[in-house]
Amino acid sequence: MKIPHIPARLFGVAALLVTAVNASAAPAEAPDGVILPAPARSAVELAEEGDDIAWTITEDLTTEIGPRMAGTEAESAARRWALSRLKAMGFANVREEQFDMPVWVRGTEEAWLTHAFQPQKLAITALGNSASTGPQGIEGSLAYFASFDALAAAPDEKVRNRIVFIDNDMKPTQDGSGYGYYGRGRFSGPNVAAKKVAIAIVIRSIGTDSHRNPHTGVTNFEAGVKPIPAGAISNPDADQLYRQLVRQQAVVDEVRMKLILTPQNLGTRHSGNVIAEVPGSDPAASPVIVACHLDSWDLGTGAIDDAAGCGIITAAAKHVMKAGQPRRTIRVLWAGAEEVGVFGGKAYFDAHGKEKHAVALESDFGADRIWRVDFKLPDSAGPLADRIAAAVMPFGVVRGKQPAGGGADVGALVQAGAPAIDLAQDGTRYFDIHHTPDDTLDKIDVNNLHQNVLVWTATLAILANSSDSELP
Amino acid sequence: MKIPHIPARLFGVAALLVTAVNASAAPAEAPDGVILPAPARSAVELAEEGDDIAWTITEDLTTEIGPRMAGTEAESAARRWALSRLKAMGFANVREEQFDMPVWVRGTEEAWLTHAFQPQKLAITALGNSASTGPQGIEGSLAYFASFDALAAAPDEKVRNRIVFIDNDMKPTQDGSGYGYYGRGRFSGPNVAAKKVAIAIVIRSIGTDSHRNPHTGVTNFEAGVKPIPAGAISNPDADQLYRQLVRQQAVVDEVRMKLILTPQNLGTRHSGNVIAEVPGSDPAASPVIVACHLDSWDLGTGAIDDAAGCGIITAAAKHVMKAGQPRRTIRVLWAGAEEVGVFGGKAYFDAHGKEKHAVALESDFGADRIWRVDFKLPDSAGPLADRIAAAVMPFGVVRGKQPAGGGADVGALVQAGAPAIDLAQDGTRYFDIHHTPDDTLDKIDVNNLHQNVLVWTATLAILANSSDSELP
Repeated sequence: MKIPHIPARLFGVAALLVTAVNASAAPAEAPDGVILPAPARSAVELAEEGDDIAWTITEDLTTEIGPRMAGTEAESAARRWALSRLKAMGFANVREEQFDMPVWVRGTEEAWLTHAFQPQKLAITALGNSASTGPQGIEGSLAYFASFDALAAAPDEKVRNRIVFIDNDMKPTQDGSGYGYYGRGRFSGPNVAAKKVAIAIVIRSIGTDSHRNPHTGVTNFEAGVKPIPAGAISNPDADQLYRQLVRQQAVVDEVRMKLILTPQNLGTRHSGNVIAEVPGSDPAASPVIVACHLDSWDLGTGAIDDAAGCGIITAAAKHVMKAGQPRRTIRVLWAGAEEVGVFGGKAYFDAHGKEKHAVALESDFGADRIWRVDFKLPDSAGPLADRIAAAVMPFGVVRGKQPAGGGADVGALVQAGAPAIDLAQDGTRYFDIHHTPDDTLDKIDVNNLHQNVLVWTATLAILANSSDSELP
Repeated sequence: MKIPHIPARLFGVAALLVTAVNASAAPAEAPDGVILPAPARSAVELAEEGDDIAWTITEDLTTEIGPRMAGTEAESAARRWALSRLKAMGFANVREEQFDMPVWVRGTEEAWLTHAFQPQKLAITALGNSASTGPQGIEGSLAYFASFDALAAAPDEKVRNRIVFIDNDMKPTQDGSGYGYYGRGRFSGPNVAAKKVAIAIVIRSIGTDSHRNPHTGVTNFEAGVKPIPAGAISNPDADQLYRQLVRQQAVVDEVRMKLILTPQNLGTRHSGNVIAEVPGSDPAASPVIVACHLDSWDLGTGAIDDAAGCGIITAAAKHVMKAGQPRRTIRVLWAGAEEVGVFGGKAYFDAHGKEKHAVALESDFGADRIWRVDFKLPDSAGPLADRIAAAVMPFGVVRGKQPAGGGADVGALVQAGAPAIDLAQDGTRYFDIHHTPDDTLDKIDVNNLHQNVLVWTATLAILANSSDSELP
């Protein structure tokens, strides 16, 4: 029997922190014996005292809703859950902002190595926007490419009428920078293979683990390119396929794969963003926007991607709210349909892109500890950045040197000029789990999650009370 | 791209060992300048010089055959492969000894939590000998039991017409002793649930990992008990189910599961043991038998269970053979159909149980390092045990105090009185992988595998040259 409810442990941790950090915040006895009133608690002190908000949101959302594929009934159920939870927490202006989007859903997913050895089944999952093989599947010989670049450089005749296999093997990095580089095999490989008239493409998962849980994720075909079936096999399955190819030497002819992938495009459906606010005291001040995404891939329960992000930003906003009304409004955005194409972020920008935003932040890189803070702020905000860097340093966060990006769901805002801050999480383990069935609650370390809330609360408290001379 | 072929690394390791350990075995220059002949190499020295046998058997078997479910065409292909490989390695009397067995094969495997929250799919696998739900599946409310004992003690009315869930949560131990204790939920839980008229049973996997790969394994129903559908869900799925049950409080009524498991009994089919020998110089001396099993569960490629075991024992036998003919015959048994009921071990005992065996050993607990040696020997073998303990101590192996069991495939021999030695492997990680799709080649540490070969070679060299006054 597993320990079901971690907050008890969390309170224990918090209690220790209170003892260590907040001794001065306890009622003190003055020399003349008069009991002085306790000073008001800061947002960070409130977060330190006992934060189960982030954990509870993460646990409840992943347990009661589970997987939340964009545009499906599950994502809709998640929005109803979110509206109810955010209202109950005392946020203002809690609302859904609906938008339309194309919906793709997974079907049967099976693959076998059929030749030249004893037939074996592989662990495969379709990539988002994959075409269907039809229920009977397809079979073909494999065309091996060690990387996306090798595929891109290959003459069409190496690819035509074959099943492409891209074998590039992602390695972990703390800042997640391997994703963009290795990820091209997933983002663009199917499009390139389709243009070279491959009958299908299978990639080594864009992931850093060694479990037989393949990593899904969206791929995109250019307008005018006919989508082909596209899947990812797990790292151990990619190893196996590679070993068979090496044994057969004649890589392009001898090893054959059968593939059944039957995803469907369901056409246009509703999705939506859920928005909640902590109203600021100065109605003329522009809001601080903090974002996460509510949808998840369908294979896991979306714990690290991105229930935890919603938990973290919402806990921070709640602590700032409880500490006293901030000057600026804090707008909490739980975006819809991020995974399959950032449709929620685009819809938010369409609706609100013309409004002034003081600064944008997003939490969407798991729940491991924040190790670095990066800024993209106007020159006027130099002292503000210094204050934030100083406030988060005690939690083990170093000041970085690269410009902040803000995250997918606020990406359009930041592209359009909004200031941004990145509270960068440690990504060393992130791509072990990312977009797999293994994205479940047990992967979250409660102490790391708590550190996220503390860093976010410290940052948000400063931002929400920043002046108009510092931020737009 | 993964490194495909580890032996190159292995040779590097071995080369270092040669330098450190075997300097005295190199040709030496005598004082008068005459080059002396190199002394004959011992079996252990040969193993140290460069052992790729265990790795190659493990890699080739898992790559070219893959999963080898007992009684299927895949296991038959594995036997053909084994006969060919063992002959090519120079073993004598290489043969197949066929037997018949009942064959059970997996079908569709799906489970959902359907009520009281948003429907969610669980990762499930059928237990061997599970009944089928039929293609339409069944749905029912759950009866929760924290352990097998709790189920056994429950009144029938708590179970009748429900889906039983046994939640006991196995913890790792170095000696694997948790398996027997926690495993009762799998071995016996379905039989007990069937007798109490449950409609099905789902257990928390008998495993110590947190991945969404459920652990299969055989279960048995008593004669006269009608089998029910029986499956294992992964640890994260069991956590999820438990959280939902806690939330609903009314454990027995409120949470419902739909289950589709469609395994089939195929009736009686052939399986077989593969046997190879190193003939001893003394035809009157009884043989030493060393065992592994060739079959595997169907979910993974059976790398740690038990391709590695076959690699280890066969490498050791080959090194002893190469070092010079031993006094006793070494009989290498690659047993068939172990996983589903030790049918190969029983068939060996039926055919050979009346023959005298000097001593029996088996490697069937993964590929991590050997940490302990245990004995069950006649009193006359005290000095022999001392020699073996001394020979394996340099490889980090301690002398244990419990009687050796010998392993499943030689279990009947040992029960009937044959002496046994256990070269006990570290099981701390074993039940992370055991009987899951994750039992693949990448889980094997080549240095640990090599240590196994060294320890086995040292032990086998002593046993194969032991006297009749020491062993029967």
